[in-house]
Amino acid sequence: MRVNVGGEIREVRTLWREGRTVRMIDQRRLPHSFEIASTEHHAETAAAIRDMVLRGAGAIGVAGAYGMAQAAMEAGDLPPEGFEGYMAAAADRLRGTRPTAVNLFHAVDRCLRAAARGPVAERVRGVVAEADAIAEEDLLASTRIGELGGELIGDGCRVLTHCNAGALAFIDLGTALSPIRFAHRRGRGVFVFVDETRPRCQGSKLTAWELRQEGIPHAVIVDGAAGLFMQRGEVDLVIVGADRVAANGDVANKVGTYGTAVLARENGVPFYVAAPGMTFDLGCGTGDEIEIEERGAEEVLGMWGVDDDGSPAWVLVAAEGTPARNPAFDITPARYVTAFITERGILRPPYPESIAGAFGLRGRGGN
Amino acid sequence: MRVNVGGEIREVRTLWREGRTVRMIDQRRLPHSFEIASTEHHAETAAAIRDMVLRGAGAIGVAGAYGMAQAAMEAGDLPPEGFEGYMAAAADRLRGTRPTAVNLFHAVDRCLRAAARGPVAERVRGVVAEADAIAEEDLLASTRIGELGGELIGDGCRVLTHCNAGALAFIDLGTALSPIRFAHRRGRGVFVFVDETRPRCQGSKLTAWELRQEGIPHAVIVDGAAGLFMQRGEVDLVIVGADRVAANGDVANKVGTYGTAVLARENGVPFYVAAPGMTFDLGCGTGDEIEIEERGAEEVLGMWGVDDDGSPAWVLVAAEGTPARNPAFDITPARYVTAFITERGILRPPYPESIAGAFGLRGRGGN
Repeated sequence: MRVNVGGEIREVRTLWREGRTVRMIDQRRLPHSFEIASTEHHAETAAAIRDMVLRGAGAIGVAGAYGMAQAAMEAGDLPPEGFEGYMAAAADRLRGTRPTAVNLFHAVDRCLRAAARGPVAERVRGVVAEADAIAEEDLLASTRIGELGGELIGDGCRVLTHCNAGALAFIDLGTALSPIRFAHRRGRGVFVFVDETRPRCQGSKLTAWELRQEGIPHAVIVDGAAGLFMQRGEVDLVIVGADRVAANGDVANKVGTYGTAVLARENGVPFYVAAPGMTFDLGCGTGDEIEIEERGAEEVLGMWGVDDDGSPAWVLVAAEGTPARNPAFDITPARYVTAFITERGILRPPYPESIAGAFGLRGRGGN
Repeated sequence: MRVNVGGEIREVRTLWREGRTVRMIDQRRLPHSFEIASTEHHAETAAAIRDMVLRGAGAIGVAGAYGMAQAAMEAGDLPPEGFEGYMAAAADRLRGTRPTAVNLFHAVDRCLRAAARGPVAERVRGVVAEADAIAEEDLLASTRIGELGGELIGDGCRVLTHCNAGALAFIDLGTALSPIRFAHRRGRGVFVFVDETRPRCQGSKLTAWELRQEGIPHAVIVDGAAGLFMQRGEVDLVIVGADRVAANGDVANKVGTYGTAVLARENGVPFYVAAPGMTFDLGCGTGDEIEIEERGAEEVLGMWGVDDDGSPAWVLVAAEGTPARNPAFDITPARYVTAFITERGILRPPYPESIAGAFGLRGRGGN
């Protein structure tokens, strides 16, 4: 992604590997400060995932793979049994950081399989190559989603998005934001309505920051204002990402996505879900099977930001002890989805058939 | 409303008059601190309205009337011409505090008419009596709305509301919250989902505070979660207030109301609007004629709350200078409204007829 650091335009990825060092944008500091964090050891990478230095399904998966590559290099002088034991322990540690991130398990498992073939030196090279391949696949999927989805965005198009399915959630480009980037780079006048996405405000904190770095015109709105702009005819299409897509096309995504989809249909606005094959879970029949994680009340009762001095600060908005409910995701039934934008093409209804056709042979979590 | 102040249960109104003194709950301090502000002079009352010590259409109207009563008492020793000039100046000052509050203009005008009859001493009594009558009418409308609307809320009912149309927005009881209070006092097990209502969070700050004072079970949710709870069948009905209702039943209310109404209809959940006659504007044909006020970006980009020491504090959430759009209201088309709960009865479609039947002879702003 393009980043303006003190007036200098740079192209950076969300995370990358330099030998044994993994570098990543510290997302906890955004949008108020741009800092690169580094880890030298797989245990540090695990801590970075756990502490949310980075977040987003794709980015977490790649971080897990890079952590495995670090572990392989750390264990390169051990005998085969020692190497295997070290890698198994590293895999456990990395898997334990974010228990709900399917991409993470998938990436760690792929690296673990690469760690089981031939002499140790070859195994080390194999794990590192597998980790790099996982990163490149993530980037290729985002790129293809951008190319295909970009064709849906005409000149002067006004797009609404919810949460952050941007470069920061992947290696680069993102899913929902990738078509927007491609349309913008082709010179089409794109404007983006950015839902702030309470309670954690990934929209106003991350999506708005990404768009600003690339000079893409946008405005943050409160989540409740999306309907008004659609009703006024000021939104031409909606693009969101997904945390998980069931075999029938039901979509689990950040809470508020369902309401946005209902309002889009009510107002005749196309509603697109951009997601790589990794996000399609063919072992999950419908959205009813997807459990909705409920998080702590404090996210609803207050807000993180920076104070007048630019220091991180928390304010309590409701009274102390106010009861709150905080489901993190919701399910958008497939009938509200106009199409899925994937690296294998634009998938249209009926979804059981089009999803199986694109990803069916790959099974759960396959990409 | 019932208020628990340091363990002592008290019944207080949002504002009241004691001779020349007007007392009011300082709503800027809620929910973190309960303080009563007092004004001795109509200029102080005007300042309190302007500085939002109180807010809400009904409360602002009564504050304007009480300000006029104070002005009449201040000018009681003047000759008739001096009295008239003083009252005209006071009316101008009070009207200038919140230019969009229709109730305020209406209340001030009624007091000004009462200031034009007979000798000065009689005029003073007339203005004070008119101000007190306006306050009692506000309370009677809220009471009747509670009695009628309370019948719509069965035992175990789960109600969702947006923004604050509670006691704090009127003299007492409120509109949307009045039926909930009546159902609760009748011993029905009522549960309330409270939309936090970004950007100013009147839900988590004011509505949750009011419900807590009365011991009514509730949970604050982010605005984007309303759809999920409806989809799961956990919401039995929605009640909201209104800032203005057009002659055809279109409703202007806090931004986010429209989306809530669409989600309610999509999920088969009844959607009620509780509003006194004062809020029906028969001079306004449809919602298209209602202008939507757009407020400053800073409300969207940050949040007011209290810091760890309980001191008022502001945090910036998005990056400084991020563009934002901040429409304060939206329009819910009449077709989404199941019924209006008014002091004249429950009004059902077709609304042009039922609204005209209930309030038609009274004209604009009549109550």
